[in-house]
This record gives sequence, structure tokens and C-alpha cells, in this order.
Amino acid sequence: MTIEDVQNHPDTRNIPINKVGIKDIRHPFNFIDKNGQQQSTVGTFKMSVNLPHHQKGTHMSRFVALLNEDCQQLSIQKFPALLQKMTQLLEADTGHITADFLYFINKSAPITGVKSLLDYQIQLSGSWSEDQPHITIKVLVPVTSLCPCSKKISDYGAHNQRSHITVEAVTDGQIHIEDLIDLVEQQASSQLYSLLKRPDEKFVTEQAYDNPKFVEDVVRDVANALNNDARVLAYILEAENFESIHNHSAYAVIENNKSTINTGA
Amino acid sequence: MTIEDVQNHPDTRNIPINKVGIKDIRHPFNFIDKNGQQQSTVGTFKMSVNLPHHQKGTHMSRFVALLNEDCQQLSIQKFPALLQKMTQLLEADTGHITADFLYFINKSAPITGVKSLLDYQIQLSGSWSEDQPHITIKVLVPVTSLCPCSKKISDYGAHNQRSHITVEAVTDGQIHIEDLIDLVEQQASSQLYSLLKRPDEKFVTEQAYDNPKFVEDVVRDVANALNNDARVLAYILEAENFESIHNHSAYAVIENNKSTINTGA
Amino acid sequence: MTIEDVQNHPDTRNIPINKVGIKDIRHPFNFIDKNGQQQSTVGTFKMSVNLPHHQKGTHMSRFVALLNEDCQQLSIQKFPALLQKMTQLLEADTGHITADFLYFINKSAPITGVKSLLDYQIQLSGSWSEDQPHITIKVLVPVTSLCPCSKKISDYGAHNQRSHITVEAVTDGQIHIEDLIDLVEQQASSQLYSLLKRPDEKFVTEQAYDNPKFVEDVVRDVANALNNDARVLAYILEAENFESIHNHSAYAVIENNKSTINTGA
Amino acid sequence: MTIEDVQNHPDTRNIPINKVGIKDIRHPFNFIDKNGQQQSTVGTFKMSVNLPHHQKGTHMSRFVALLNEDCQQLSIQKFPALLQKMTQLLEADTGHITADFLYFINKSAPITGVKSLLDYQIQLSGSWSEDQPHITIKVLVPVTSLCPCSKKISDYGAHNQRSHITVEAVTDGQIHIEDLIDLVEQQASSQLYSLLKRPDEKFVTEQAYDNPKFVEDVVRDVANALNNDARVLAYILEAENFESIHNHSAYAVIENNKSTINTGA
Repeated sequence: MTIEDVQNHPDTRNIPINKVGIKDIRHPFNFIDKNGQQQSTVGTFKMSVNLPHHQKGTHMSRFVALLNEDCQQLSIQKFPALLQKMTQLLEADTGHITADFLYFINKSAPITGVKSLLDYQIQLSGSWSEDQPHITIKVLVPVTSLCPCSKKISDYGAHNQRSHITVEAVTDGQIHIEDLIDLVEQQASSQLYSLLKRPDEKFVTEQAYDNPKFVEDVVRDVANALNNDARVLAYILEAENFESIHNHSAYAVIENNKSTINTGA
Repeated sequence: MTIEDVQNHPDTRNIPINKVGIKDIRHPFNFIDKNGQQQSTVGTFKMSVNLPHHQKGTHMSRFVALLNEDCQQLSIQKFPALLQKMTQLLEADTGHITADFLYFINKSAPITGVKSLLDYQIQLSGSWSEDQPHITIKVLVPVTSLCPCSKKISDYGAHNQRSHITVEAVTDGQIHIEDLIDLVEQQASSQLYSLLKRPDEKFVTEQAYDNPKFVEDVVRDVANALNNDARVLAYILEAENFESIHNHSAYAVIENNKSTINTGA
Repeated sequence: MTIEDVQNHPDTRNIPINKVGIKDIRHPFNFIDKNGQQQSTVGTFKMSVNLPHHQKGTHMSRFVALLNEDCQQLSIQKFPALLQKMTQLLEADTGHITADFLYFINKSAPITGVKSLLDYQIQLSGSWSEDQPHITIKVLVPVTSLCPCSKKISDYGAHNQRSHITVEAVTDGQIHIEDLIDLVEQQASSQLYSLLKRPDEKFVTEQAYDNPKFVEDVVRDVANALNNDARVLAYILEAENFESIHNHSAYAVIENNKSTINTGA
Repeated sequence: MTIEDVQNHPDTRNIPINKVGIKDIRHPFNFIDKNGQQQSTVGTFKMSVNLPHHQKGTHMSRFVALLNEDCQQLSIQKFPALLQKMTQLLEADTGHITADFLYFINKSAPITGVKSLLDYQIQLSGSWSEDQPHITIKVLVPVTSLCPCSKKISDYGAHNQRSHITVEAVTDGQIHIEDLIDLVEQQASSQLYSLLKRPDEKFVTEQAYDNPKFVEDVVRDVANALNNDARVLAYILEAENFESIHNHSAYAVIENNKSTINTGA
């Protein structure tokens, strides 16, 4: 006695579906970092494929089965094979996977060198289409920004705040998450650390005051660094300052597709 | 004695900024609906302009001043003028405003007709560029979906759940938020209401069971309705089912730019 | 032909229920402020009653009907009558209503006096039990805090950030939301404004630098002000600093029930 | 040359602080489960101590150092020692730690037995005071609920939805997270699984229809199970149904402190 498979029925509405799949499913995995080390984390996944006009439904359970069977380890290098496997398993032409997870770096405080973990929100996102992978990495780097106007016009002090710098990049596969984070942190008024001793706090306070940047300066300086790194092929870059003197944010966005620019030259 | 205007300094990095402005600022306003009635609500706004490469900073306070002076009333019809005014005030070429707010419709229960408000999340979004406005309306319509497979294979019952159907549409300006919501609700297994008496609950229960739809069916049926409405020029449509038998969602997306299709034909 | 009322059946498990009702229902209303002025806003409501052990279910639809029929206007003064009415309508002994909403104050910038709205998250919460109302008001006041340690140990500058000061208070009914907000803002390193001109920005920058406070200082100073205000009978007070040099918050909590202290004296 | 320690200054305001510390700090760790197995996860921590009236500030960096040095492994059994150590390190009388994290159980589908991970939100929370630990475990268990009224009054079908059952329990230390989750899942209309084959979907659909429960029934049945388990000493229990026919939730709460009841008997 078989149970009917309603999803496999034909469909006559003549409307293809761009993406169909699952979202907001949590899954633990090991992310393999720059040095081949494994870092345990928990991801939130979104997985989809296209559905041609003649097919009623996709095979939802195959996404979940793939996640449970083939996603104990993830890395930028392994992501294309996973995208291809999913697209084939679902008998589709195009496939998409997005994994959001926290990534930790064991940072040394700037003066005392005391170590502590800092967390970064990462999104690894990829498509499989025309038998090719298309991968983007998105890193959210929390930093300090200090306002040049406030510094300039005030007799002392300057308002500063936590800021989020988000870089979503298409790369040549040779740049690691740690590299992108480092590139961004170099351009902030100062970096964040979980653990700072008093000599470290003195250092970051003075460093931020010595290095004031508008949200416009931050995106331009990060854009400049991304422009000068040949491993980055295209990017969308946003800085958001959680203004300490307002109850809203200041933000700025720069987009750059280097290949488009080169083609145009 | 003047206070120096640091933002107005020249900039030599030669990097234009796509968007710079403010986000996550709350503001109360009256939204003018289909019948010219005003509905009081509270919006979360995002406002930005472009910044040419030679200018150090934008005029952040002008966004806030505009919001406080010119945003007591909002409507789809008034949005282009607001976009133009902001872009000019900021001495920019392009400008963008996004307003997210709750909108209420006083619905009648299907049998008893008892009235109650249902809330819908709306996003009114627009750009000003090349001296033209570009407006999109996004409505999130919560509905009931009932699984055809579960119904078919089970001797009785069928799993069902709340679903979110989101339509982001470019329109000809002749379609109202209420029309889009109504169009979507017609295609669900059944609609939601805040207040249902027992005869109403019997009705929506049986209606959903009589009208089972996969997430694929829902997006196709809403897409079909949008395709047949000449007032809708382009759309991105997503359905998300908060599956009652899983701890994750099923979702599907259809995008359609009718002008592109027509051009191609 | 009647439709059976399953909720009204007797229950034999012998387990009373402390609270049963609805939550996360949105509803627009006018809040009546200190000066009798009405402010339009949108609330998120939670409404519940107790259920005695012998009754199977409560009357869920009566909560929604009450919200739609009797909640066009809300105020601290009107809240007890609403609580009593709900508890009676549901044929219960105790009832609880919580309304979360944004409230706006039109603030004047400190030097130029330019006006702009600032938003505050409010929670109005009440119980009806033993034929008496018990009301608490919770206000979340966003402010600036500046670190005394960072100022002291650094040759120049000092890290500062946005902070949230939350006061949940039982009052004698004679203190308004505006009074509580004002009381809190007086104790911060400096206040927030949506719109600041350059002379204002200079003022708040220097004011914060002149007025450094640890999270411990902030809660103590607000506690002191609350202790000295006879209209406040009890409170829970929390300050949270979104540290500009860390990716986590510092926080502190003081609770004080003045009547308990008085009884103990 | 020493850097002044401002936090260690005396304070003359004569106001003790109930809790001061850090919150929203992310930290990866291994949780040791029922069988002594380690599960890697990422937690969000809140850590605080009391501060006597005569001391200006606490030692914020010691919380972070403790987290980085002593929190590679966590378990219910190890939690008291961590609480004691923190309270001593901070030279305080009372201390509090809360860790929120996702926990996964590899569940077997009810008919085919196919395995998949399901995620549960856990909160491990503890205090150290009067030289004693006080530990609570909170589990959020997502389940299916099916409405008895909808089933009874409808000719076919019944609305059902995902529900969250949350149990916060004080235990004797002999009950594990898995036990609490299992106890809760037994009382739902049916359980959730990430992966279900068609025979499994048929089973859970029919099981839910055979087992209709109001939100009131769910809390009473879970309360009954908790009352009958001697390892649970006290609890706060909430069920929330994300109603598939409304855009709001139904919810119910039962609190029970068995020792109070026993003392009273």
C-alpha cells in the first residue's frame, strides 16, 4: 500500500517558482577556518531551489535530510560542492543556501596582550546556477566610531559609539573571514575587545580620539581597502553608527562591482 | 563666532557614496488610505541620499528636520513630492525613503459579521533619481495555510498554520494597500480575523480544509492574481509557512517584472 | 441549532490556572498625557485572567471584543476601570493587562531650542485582584553615558555610548510618564535629542564629558531621585550601557519597595 | 607609574546595588548532557553580583576573564561551583549567571524512525547567596496544538498550529534537560520533528486530530506531569499557541511552588 505523493503531481498554472525551500532551521556544525582549525558553532539555514512550471511541489524533506547528513562541517571551500549536491538532489537547475552563524576570534588586548574571544556575525551565502557556484561572504564587524564634528567643535571630549560595519563580498576564494574582519577593523576609529585592562582602555580611548571618522569616512576607508585587495571582486559595504547623542543610527552604503568597472574602462 | 562645519570640507579619496543618511528613527504620522480617511500610526524611517566623491559629509540633521516638519501625513500619492524635497534639501542627485508601519483594517467575521481590527505590516519605499520617483509598496499579509499532502494521506485532519504572504510591488499608483491585501487574502486557504464567534470558527476551519494549498500553490495563485491585475507593474512575492509539524518554515518566492516580459515578447 | 461550547465544559483535573488569555495583539489607541492631550499610538497588548480549577476554558473572544470596543483611549487614570471591566466580563477573580507602546515627547535642543520628537518605549501594566487595581508604569529612557575611568586614565577623550535606563514604578497615581522621563534624563551624563544643531552638539558633548558616570553611578543617582519623590511607592530600575569599546553591555539593577522599608523601620 | 583605579573609590551615596555586571556577551562552550556527552553550542551570558553601598564600582573585567578562562564546559552539576567562584572573585555576597543557548536532540520520526536534529532554546540560570546555590532550568519546547472547539464544531478539519511550551523549573539536580523536554512533549497534541517522511506526516496529523487540546488543557496536563515528578520542586509553566486563525497568540500560565504547598499542608 503506497501513500500518494501529492507534491509530484503535474501543475497546469504555467508559473515557474524562483525559489522554494526551507528557512529558519537551526543546525550545529564545525566551521573550518583559515588555519584549517575547526570551530564549533550553530547556524540558521535557508535552503531553496527553483521549481519548473510543470511540477506541483518540491521535495521539502530532502533539504532537511541533506542538512542532517552532509553539514557536520562547513567551509568556504566546501560550499560549492554542497550547493551542487543539493541542486541535484532536488532535481533542480538552480539552488541557494544561506548560513548565518557566530564566529569567534581570540583577540589580544592592545597593550597588556590579555586574550579574550570576540564574536562576529557571519553569513555564508551561495547559489548554484548554470553549473557554476556563486559564493558571497558577509561579515558584521562591530567597532568604535568617534565623531570628527563633535571633536572639532567641542572644547573637550567627543561623542563616540559602537558601530556595525557589514561587508558582503564576492571573492576569488583566497581571502578568509579573518582577513576581511582584520581589513575592516584597521579602518575604524578603534577596535572592540571583550576584555580590556586599564592600560588597554587608555589606549583605545586615546586611539579613537586620535582617529575621528564620520560614517562617511568609515565606508570610504573600508571601500578603499577593499578596492586595493585583488582577492575581493565585488562588495556591498554598510556602516551603521548607533549614535550616542541620538536615538537613531547614522548609516552609509557603498557598492562596487570591480568587474563592471574594469569592463567599462 | 562661527562653529566650523566639518561635514562641508572637501574630500580627496575620490570615492562616491551610494547612500548616506539615518535609520531606525521612529515617527508618528497619519496615513491617508483608499477612501481619503486618515489612520494614525507610528513608522520606523530610513532616509538617505547619494554623496558625490568630492564632499566629505552629508547634512544629517536635515533628514530629521524634514521628518519633523513635513511628515505629519503620508500617502502613496504624496510620497514622490517628499522624495523630491528631501533630495533637493540635501543637495543630492538621488534620494531614498523607507517607512515601515502597522496598518489596521476593520474586518467583518465571515458568518456573524462581528467587526475587529486586523494589523498588517506595511513598507512604503521610494527613490528619487534622474528627476523621477520610483515607489514600491510592500504588504505582509498573515493568513492560514493547510497542507494538501497532510490532508490527502491522513484519514482525518490536516496540519495547518499561520503563514506570511509578502508582496513588494511596483504599481501604476492606482492600487491601494487595501486592494493588495484583499487580492492576497482571496488566495489563502483561509483568512485571519482577530475576533471570531463559534459559527465563524466553524466556517474558517472548514474553508481551510476545503482549500488546501502548499506554499508553492499559494505563491502561484497570488502570482496569477498579480499577473492579471494591470495596476501591478512588477513584484517580488514570498510566502512563508510557520509549519505546525516542524520547528522551521517552508517558503517560496516568485519575482516578476512585467515590463521586462513584455519587452521580451 | 446551537453550536456546542466546549470551553464551558467542567474540568476534573483539579488544577487552577494562574493566567489565561491573549498576547501579541496589536491595537491602535489614543493615550491621554499629562496635560489631557491625546497622542495617537499603536500598542501591543497582553490580557489574561485566572481560571478556577473546575472550568475547562476561558472566553478568549471576549478579550478581543473588549479591546475593539473599549480601548480607543487609554490613560493611567482609566486603566483601573478597564481592568475591572475585563475581569468581570471574563467572570474571573483576577485580571491582568499589559500594553507596550511608543510615546513621543517634542524636545527642545539645549542651545538653539530647535524642536524634534524623541520616542520612548512605555509599558502600562495592571492587575485587578481582591477588588483592587495594581498599576505599574515602565519607561525606557535612552540617554548618553560617559565612562569616568576612561576619562580619568586617558590623556584626552573618554568612551561614551547610548544607554537604556528602565524604570518600572508603582506610583500614587499623581506622577506622569513625562515626569518619570524627566527625572531619569536629569541623572544621565547627557540627554538624547533627534535634532541637534552644531551649538547643541558642542553642548551635549561637553556636558557628557563634564558629567562622567559609571553604570553604577547612573542607577544610584536615579535611585536617589526616585527615593526622594514621594509619588513613587516602589520601583525596579535598570541601566544598560551599550559599551562603545566592547561588544557587550554593562548593566546594573536597583530594586526598592519603600513601603517594605518603612514597615521594617 | 600606576593607572588610577576609579572603580575602587569609596562611595558616599549610601545606596547598595542589587545587581551589577555584564549582559549580552556571546561565548561558545560544550554543554555536558544526560549521558556525559558533550554538545558544542554558543551561549548568551548575563553575569552580575551585588555591590555594597560603600563601593563605587564593581570589577567588570573579571566577569569577562572568568568567562574566557573557566567556561569551556558547562553543566547543571558544574554550575554551582562557577557561581561560587564568580561571587568570590568579585568579592561579593551574591552572584547571578544566566546562560541562554540552543540545545539539539537527535529525534527519530514516529513511523520510519528517520533521524533529525530538533533545536530547543534553553536557559540555565543560577544565583549564589548565603553560601548556597539556587539553580533553575528553563526549556522552550515547540509542539503542535490542535483546537478542541474547532474540531467539535466543524464537520471536518480543525485548526492547529505551532505552540511554545516553556517550563522554568527548580529541581533536585537529578532531572536532565532531556527529561524535561520529554515530559512536555508527551502532553502536546503532537510533537515536532525536523524530518518527516509521508508515513510520519500521516501519523502526526492523525495523532494531533485524536488529541485536541486548548492552551488551558496543555498547561494543565504539563502541570500534572510536573506535579507528579518528585525531582521538580517548583516551576513556572507557560504555553503559547501561535493561533493559525488569528494574528495573535493564546497563552496560559501555571505557577507552582511545591514546598510552599507542602509546608502549608
